[in-house]
Order: sequence, then structure tokens, then C-alpha cells
Amino acid sequence: MRLLNKESVEDIAIGAAILGTGGGGDPYIGKIMAMNAIEEEGPITLLDPSEVPDDALIIPTAMMGAPTVLVEKIPRGDEILEALRALERRFGKKAYATISCEAGGVNSTVPLAVAARLHIPVVDADGMGRAFPEIQMVTFHLHGITASPMAMADEKGNAVLIEAIDNYWVERISRAVTVVMGGSAMIALYPMTGAQVKEAAIPRTITLAEQLGRTVREAREKKKDPIKEVLKIVNGFELFKGKIVDVQRRTVAGFARGEARLEGIDEYKGDELIIRFQNENLVAIRNGRIIASVPDLITVLEIETGLPITTEGLKYGYRAVVVGIPCHPKWRTPEGLETVGPKYFGYDIEYVPIEERMRGYT
Amino acid sequence: MRLLNKESVEDIAIGAAILGTGGGGDPYIGKIMAMNAIEEEGPITLLDPSEVPDDALIIPTAMMGAPTVLVEKIPRGDEILEALRALERRFGKKAYATISCEAGGVNSTVPLAVAARLHIPVVDADGMGRAFPEIQMVTFHLHGITASPMAMADEKGNAVLIEAIDNYWVERISRAVTVVMGGSAMIALYPMTGAQVKEAAIPRTITLAEQLGRTVREAREKKKDPIKEVLKIVNGFELFKGKIVDVQRRTVAGFARGEARLEGIDEYKGDELIIRFQNENLVAIRNGRIIASVPDLITVLEIETGLPITTEGLKYGYRAVVVGIPCHPKWRTPEGLETVGPKYFGYDIEYVPIEERMRGYT
Repeated sequence: MRLLNKESVEDIAIGAAILGTGGGGDPYIGKIMAMNAIEEEGPITLLDPSEVPDDALIIPTAMMGAPTVLVEKIPRGDEILEALRALERRFGKKAYATISCEAGGVNSTVPLAVAARLHIPVVDADGMGRAFPEIQMVTFHLHGITASPMAMADEKGNAVLIEAIDNYWVERISRAVTVVMGGSAMIALYPMTGAQVKEAAIPRTITLAEQLGRTVREAREKKKDPIKEVLKIVNGFELFKGKIVDVQRRTVAGFARGEARLEGIDEYKGDELIIRFQNENLVAIRNGRIIASVPDLITVLEIETGLPITTEGLKYGYRAVVVGIPCHPKWRTPEGLETVGPKYFGYDIEYVPIEERMRGYT
Repeated sequence: MRLLNKESVEDIAIGAAILGTGGGGDPYIGKIMAMNAIEEEGPITLLDPSEVPDDALIIPTAMMGAPTVLVEKIPRGDEILEALRALERRFGKKAYATISCEAGGVNSTVPLAVAARLHIPVVDADGMGRAFPEIQMVTFHLHGITASPMAMADEKGNAVLIEAIDNYWVERISRAVTVVMGGSAMIALYPMTGAQVKEAAIPRTITLAEQLGRTVREAREKKKDPIKEVLKIVNGFELFKGKIVDVQRRTVAGFARGEARLEGIDEYKGDELIIRFQNENLVAIRNGRIIASVPDLITVLEIETGLPITTEGLKYGYRAVVVGIPCHPKWRTPEGLETVGPKYFGYDIEYVPIEERMRGYT
């Protein structure tokens, strides 16, 4: 157990956006929500998963929707509390703590704001170890936990409670509601016990995000190469270095889909890299050949600062390093790959772990 | 208070489809649901609105969606009970009775099935005195009653509870969920007190539907003109007599939209009538001139039998009489016309009551 202050949130927002692989929302909005909450309510208690009582009710909280929308539609702040309270009412029991569904700019920090506002702890863990675009794409799902009942709330005051027959139906129904709500909604879902958190969550990813964010910040202060430092922490690989020359993006059925094209610089001169995304980066294609794919992490970092660029932040002219990071082993099981492997996203390729791809490439 | 048996249901289904103005669902499906329920559970108690205690909890039940879909997607039967029970759980109180939201083939008989299955009465009233396509288009809405909380259930077992800021938002959210659920859903909404039923509902429309259905049945048995008999009961007008020569129909955003064209026969020879619909018939246009519009009722009756033809039943070659029926006075108030007048449906005309239009025409 330890306390998180505003500086921790600052670092977590950056580090989580690195793990967010382009998605998980704009780190700025979640950071502001969490920092305002700490300012007004005091520091946040971060619990190690091992410290959570087995029978405690843990309610994950998150933002759902295309991050492109969220940028123009800032949450009011208390709709996320409404979502959590709707599940508390449903169970007739208070939440012992909240937890992140995914690591990402918004979705790592929104639960921090919830924890501060409600004076409950946040568990140092999440359900992806990265960001993914759909409801069932969490390790909770792999462990048989149901997303239902799921509560949704928007900034206008609308609220919806979903109890569906499986997590794919939760995704379908909640996605349609998100679109009607204006493209984004605040949600509480996958209510679970402390015992389930210990078994199903990916542990200590808030601490990992904080470490990554702090490393980037300190490297800049010490004039060290932030990207090299980041890669050391996550056992990652530099995939490409280049300038963004084209970005295509459209919001379809509640998702931000598109691709970015980079022209190589330095040792990559003459090469091109294409990144395809659905909220998050899905595949990286170098000179027509896939060099990294989901569920491994593909993250775009600004070349000088090491700051992560989200898919909605991708812009012509940015100079960036694209990095690949091995995903958590839970995603490399047959069930994991069925849920979030390249085939699920429509790429008819076998998943090859990034370490193996990199061995083959060099 | 009186009991409804299977013969009553048979008549109500026909009469309600006449009031359903082309919508309100296929009378066959609702009839089968209600008759099976009576077969297994016994007759249904029909309560006059004046007999409902003021503080009783009354929960309306209905089918939502494009009737074109329902024809191929027969409800399992207990999902509607699930929807009602979800509202009972929400209030921690049992429903004293159920009631129809609209008069229509399915939506007059579905509450009968609910009443039979749960052994509760059904109130002899509804929220439209006809059928309309959207959630807020009920007299309950005109009297300030909220559609929230609204429960939805589908035949797969999915359930959704909506608490929205106003009835238009309930419509938007529930429509999106209906589309995802496959185009139709069973719903419970507008929970209200007995006192509110007395003030806001259109009274005795189940009895009216039964009277209409019986009249059509008996006229056929006695070789009398069923349509003339129907017009007498509802103070209606014959608008046109013709053969259907063209029907265009498409399901858009959860609605069945389209138009039917009729070529006149007998005294209407040489004339044409176009009926435009959105689930229900909205306007009748004779030789390019509107001769009837919402909120007045426009109903298509088969020429020989007097049986109502729903918008999804409109087919090339059918010979039909189109009738116009004055709507309930609640719809002719400024609030009523704002909610369901021709302008709301995109027709830039002033509403003229059918009686006045008919005076002008002859």
C-alpha cells in the first residue's frame, strides 16, 4: 500500500499512454480529472493486488468510446461515480476498491479520479497490461468473469444498466449505447471479488506506468535518450524511426479506425512503415511485411521527448520512433490469441511473438 | 371488471389492428401469445381505469421495433415478463396491473399475455388510442410521466435498464439497443400510479378494440358491409377505395418506412392515393393533395372482409378501403400536435382535423 500524489499521476498518465499503444484515450484529460480529484480530496491509496481481501467487491471503472470524440467532449466528472454507484446499488454493497480495465492515458487515470473522489483504494493492476478497443478484450474475460452487470453514464445524466448473456453481447449493446450517447460514455463493469482480481488481473501495471513516465521525465531532465530507457524497462524493441507523411482516420461504429504512414529517417532511410489502428495500434507493416502485431504492443513515441503519440494525435510531419513491446503471457495462450490475436482483427496471419520476429529480422 | 377469454382476444387483436393504423405489430403473433397464455393460465381480468387504486403501481408492457422484423423473429414469451420484473425489482414492489402503451395488433395483446401469465389484471386503456412509432408518443408523456426507468429484454436473454434525462433520450437509447438486439425487443416502461393512469391514459380502448373486432366478425357472418359498421363505431370516414399497385418499404434505423400507392376503383376510378408510413400510416395523399394526416388514424381495410392490413402486409393487388378516424382529443392540443403532428414527422403542413378536411372535400 502506498499513496499517489499529483506527481505520481503526472508520471502514470505518460507511462500508461506508452502502454496504451496509441489508444486508451488522451492522457491529458484523465490526468486533469485525477489531479483535480487529488487537489480537492487528498492523495490516493494504491493497493498491491496481494493486499486485497478475497471477498472484497472490486468495481473496475473506465471511459468507453472513440478517443477522437473524447477530445471534444470532456466528461463532467461525476458521471463515472454514477456508473460505479449503479453497480453498488445493484449488489446492495459498497465497492471496496476500483481498478483499471486497461492501461491507457484515460483508462489508467480515470480509476484514480474515482478512488480519490470516493476515498476508496485503487488496485495496482489492470485487465490488459495495454489498451484494446473492445469490452471482452480483458484478461478478466479469459478467466470467465462476466462484464455484466455493466453500468453506463453520460455527461448529460443518462444512465444504462446492461445484463447480457455473454461479454460479446455486452460489447455490442454498450457500443450502440456509446454511439447514441455521443461517441463516449463512462462505465463500470466486470464487478469481481478480490480473489478474482488476484487470479485474473495483470498485476502492478500502475507502478509500471509510473516508472515509465518517471523515466521519460528524468531522461529529458538529464538529457539522456528517453526511448532507450523505456525499451530497457519493458524489454522492448525499436521497430522504426521516421516522419509521419500520411494519416487516414475515420470514426466508424464508435471506433477510430485508420492508418498512419511513416517515411524512414537515419538508418531507416528509404523504408516505409504503415501502422493500422482501431483505437489502438494493431499491426506495423515495414516495406509491405508485418513486423509486429497484436497482442504485442506497438507504440509511437516522439523522437526527441519520448512522449507517446496517441492514434488521434498522429499528425503529418511528426518525427517518431515506433517501438514494439512483448504483451503479457496471458495474451499468448490459445484463448488469449482467440480474443485479441491478429485474426480477430481481420488479419489472416499467425501471431508471432515480437521477440521471435525481431530475432528473424536482424 | 370483467374477464377476457380466447374469443375476446380474437376480437381485440382485429379491432386493435384497425386502431393500429398499419402499425402496432402483426395481430397474429400477439394473439397467439395471449391465447396460449389464457389456455394455460385461465381468463384475464380487465379492469376499468376507474377501478384502479390511486396508489397502485401500473407497469405498461409492449413490443418495440420494426414490425417487419417481428414477423420473422417470434418472441420466446417470457422475455416480456423479465422486462416487467426488472422494473418491479427496481421499485422493490410488485406491479398491481399492466396496461397497453398503444392500440395495435401486438401491443394491445402482449399486455394481455403478461396479465394472464402473472395473474394480474390489465387496465382497459392505452397511451395512444392508436399506434405511433416512437417511445415519447404517448399521452403519458403529455401528462409529464417519464418513460424511465425502462426495461428491455430480448429472446436471447439480454436485458437492459435505461434511466434517461427525458423521454426523447429514452427513445434514442432504446432504439439503438433494439437495433442491436436484432430489430425488436420486449419492453416495460412508463411505470405509473393508478392516479396517473386515470389522468393520462386513453380509457376503454381494449373494449373499443373488442367491439370493433366483434363487429367485423359478425358483419362477415351476417353478410353485412363490415367497413360501414366499423366507421359507425369510430365516427370514421371512407377516404378511398382502390387496388394496391406499388409498395416501397425499407427498414431504416429500426423503423419500417415506405409508401403504398393505390389506383381507385368504383367511384374513385381514375384517382390515386398514396399512403406514407413509418411503422404506422402517417399521411394519405389523394391526387397530390393531403386528405388525412397524423395524429388522425389512417387505416387500410381489406375490401371484402374488413380486416385491417398492416404496413408490412401491404401487397400488390390487394383491394382495400382506406378509412380516416378522428384521433383522441388529447392529441389535438398544442402539446399533442408538437409530439405527433405532421410537422414532427417531417411534413410541413398544418394539422387539420379529419372531420374538417372531409367537410371541405365533399
